Amino acid sequence: MNRMQTVDSSQIEFNFAAYIKERRQLIENKLAHCLDGKIPDNLWDSMRYSVLSGGKRLRALLCLASAEAIIGLDEDLEAFLPLCCAIEMIHAMSLIHDDLPALDNDDYRRGKLTNHKVFGEAIALLAGDALLMLAIETLIEKTPKTIDSGLLLDIVRQLCQATGAPGMVGGQVLDLAFTGKLTDLQNSNASDQKIKADTIETIHRGKTGALIKFAVRSGASLAGANSKQLTLLEDFADKLGYAFQIADDLLDSTGNLITLGKTPGKDQASCKVTWVTVFGEKQALEKLQNLEKEGMAILNSSELAGHNTAPLKELLKYAINRTN
Amino acid sequence: MNRMQTVDSSQIEFNFAAYIKERRQLIENKLAHCLDGKIPDNLWDSMRYSVLSGGKRLRALLCLASAEAIIGLDEDLEAFLPLCCAIEMIHAMSLIHDDLPALDNDDYRRGKLTNHKVFGEAIALLAGDALLMLAIETLIEKTPKTIDSGLLLDIVRQLCQATGAPGMVGGQVLDLAFTGKLTDLQNSNASDQKIKADTIETIHRGKTGALIKFAVRSGASLAGANSKQLTLLEDFADKLGYAFQIADDLLDSTGNLITLGKTPGKDQASCKVTWVTVFGEKQALEKLQNLEKEGMAILNSSELAGHNTAPLKELLKYAINRTN
Repeated sequence: MNRMQTVDSSQIEFNFAAYIKERRQLIENKLAHCLDGKIPDNLWDSMRYSVLSGGKRLRALLCLASAEAIIGLDEDLEAFLPLCCAIEMIHAMSLIHDDLPALDNDDYRRGKLTNHKVFGEAIALLAGDALLMLAIETLIEKTPKTIDSGLLLDIVRQLCQATGAPGMVGGQVLDLAFTGKLTDLQNSNASDQKIKADTIETIHRGKTGALIKFAVRSGASLAGANSKQLTLLEDFADKLGYAFQIADDLLDSTGNLITLGKTPGKDQASCKVTWVTVFGEKQALEKLQNLEKEGMAILNSSELAGHNTAPLKELLKYAINRTN
Repeated sequence: MNRMQTVDSSQIEFNFAAYIKERRQLIENKLAHCLDGKIPDNLWDSMRYSVLSGGKRLRALLCLASAEAIIGLDEDLEAFLPLCCAIEMIHAMSLIHDDLPALDNDDYRRGKLTNHKVFGEAIALLAGDALLMLAIETLIEKTPKTIDSGLLLDIVRQLCQATGAPGMVGGQVLDLAFTGKLTDLQNSNASDQKIKADTIETIHRGKTGALIKFAVRSGASLAGANSKQLTLLEDFADKLGYAFQIADDLLDSTGNLITLGKTPGKDQASCKVTWVTVFGEKQALEKLQNLEKEGMAILNSSELAGHNTAPLKELLKYAINRTN
């Protein structure tokens, strides 16, 4: 399922598989440590079930890679791990609430029963709420005290925006609003191509884009990036976030339950508005190719020359070519 | 329904009705200002519906009164209003999620249809999530920049603890766990009186106590209280929070839909474990009387002598004697 072949000179000296394995281990260890609560036991079990169930950790990896674009490769990453954990907790809570019968009503996630199927709807709902709070508590409590309080406050504020009504939650609401209106959009005039594309982008920009953008921005910000670097990395994150979502939509269309770990074909069945359901698979692949080119161009810009951008480049390719 | 008559010398010179009216107005104005979001419109309408529906604002009033115990009466309260708004938003989100079919399945709240009855379950769920994030965003963004960042970070951290698994959400889970086990508890030995009381207190300490305690502590903390004052005010908040909940349980048992604004008699019907369902109304009234005495004693202690504690005293009486 390697959809595109790109050549990147940095690949030669950079072992992405080892890189990603090592960082995933750091993230998993820290997450387990942050989720060692005991009372009430069923609440914590439910929280652990969804956070520690072995996701891709793409958002946390992006946060670290973005930080490493500023501080360089193989530096101590401890200061960034609470931020990574906060991002992964918020991602996990969004999946728990998304899967509830009131929303997507999904039975499987990452090849396992969804949280409410195991713990019941009430606990799943409350575990999501508790994870939102634990994310911010972790970010504040575990980030080293050497980090400037004003900077950390600003990162917390941005996390709330990326997660709430202006970001992820708002995107979920738009997604709901357009679900079922797929036929209207498909039947609209050919001259409305741009309106269609803009509609899809607006939904995705909130639903998945906001947290991915936050991950990239906050990692660099905590690493001391300047505003020029932050703007470039945010632009890159926009491309990657959108590509990630279109790849997700393609997987929903072409994947199967075993490799995907969740029920495929749901977008079309529930008339969700995605790049694939509106424009078809071929156009989706073309869009992905363009987004990859644009993302690479940003990382190759003169302002980021000499920076350690190899991990971000590999993560962009990974987001596009993954099989789950 | 004035259950107890107490005489307080400060009442003579302190007009509680005017005090509470003025501060409620400050809180309502600020809340309306903080909830002026527009996109997606149904999400923001749902958030406004529950936050701006005229609650008692007891938690926000406690926060202000606690601050005023430190800075004195009739000082500028602007710096405390974002904190008040954050607390009220979190309280509102807890009611939205609590009322959902997956939890209490309530149709009425404050005499109006519950959020999910108006906006649907999906939007109600997401509005709760968005309010959690908006609460913290508001606290960080709108608190004056003159406030020390380290202090504000610590207040945000405490708010997350009070709201999440160690506080409100954890209490809701315990409440669920004991619901239906009322008969077991009622039938246990008379020697288990202390176990019964401790069980109820543990549930309440999380479910309603944690946010009330946070309101009192954070108001004083932002006002510059020292650790001795904070400890005393926290003890006071424990008494008030517990009294507030027992008064709530009594109202559930004796109130009616019109004055109460929500369906009464639900605790007994759903076998909820409360002071009233376990020990009966008479003992609940005695417990309330004791809590009021203990709360007053703290405010009258020598360490708080000369402080402006009249508003807190009145709020304690109000929490106990209210009719809704």
